Amino acid sequence: MRLVNIDHVAIAVHDLDAALTDYERLYHVVPEYREVVEEQGVEEAMLPVGASNVQLLQPLGPDTPVGRFLAEHGEGLHHIAFAVPSIDEALRHLAHEGAELIDRRPRIGGGGHLIAFVHPRALAGTLIELVELQ
Amino acid sequence: MRLVNIDHVAIAVHDLDAALTDYERLYHVVPEYREVVEEQGVEEAMLPVGASNVQLLQPLGPDTPVGRFLAEHGEGLHHIAFAVPSIDEALRHLAHEGAELIDRRPRIGGGGHLIAFVHPRALAGTLIELVELQ
Repeated sequence: MRLVNIDHVAIAVHDLDAALTDYERLYHVVPEYREVVEEQGVEEAMLPVGASNVQLLQPLGPDTPVGRFLAEHGEGLHHIAFAVPSIDEALRHLAHEGAELIDRRPRIGGGGHLIAFVHPRALAGTLIELVELQ
Repeated sequence: MRLVNIDHVAIAVHDLDAALTDYERLYHVVPEYREVVEEQGVEEAMLPVGASNVQLLQPLGPDTPVGRFLAEHGEGLHHIAFAVPSIDEALRHLAHEGAELIDRRPRIGGGGHLIAFVHPRALAGTLIELVELQ
């Protein structure tokens, strides 16, 4: 297991357009890309900040993971994503250590990368995404 | 206003020792330093991950900002910190744009850096810390 970087920090928002406007106005950051990820039920935008990114997530509807998060918690920090060299190796290590996984096998996420989520119960109440960058 | 990097992502924890043990066991990351910041009512540890850091925050008592956060939300993501070249310039810009500031003037934070917090109401429910690295 080796973490290469914080790939992104994800923030759940009600209105992606409004959040993008405010990020540009207040912090002068603009999205590198924006896309709908149907499988995860979100429209997302990736805003580069130095070597990492802020990812803004707007749910495609209330009955999606991010939609339910917003209903329960309101807007705010949603998860942190670590870049790893090999997601298979990372998942094997975490499973061996008894960490509670949401995805036992990698799947395709935003940007076409292999990703997997680790349950917040595994460590400090934090939803963690692993991303294999290639 | 220019964001240089995501300096750190902060996570509130009940037990810093336990969280550090789990971060090392699961993700093989170890703290660069650990310190008590009395003014903020926390003991914190900074864990380098690539060009950024995970910061773990344990409150010094229940009647502190992080203590109250834990009582209300439980463990989890607490704030995101952006490195800026000049915190004075960043605060002037944010005030001019009408963003709700927690600190209208910089103060000394962990690691001896100048810091300031921006209220979650300013943008997408996210508590944002500005850090001037020098």
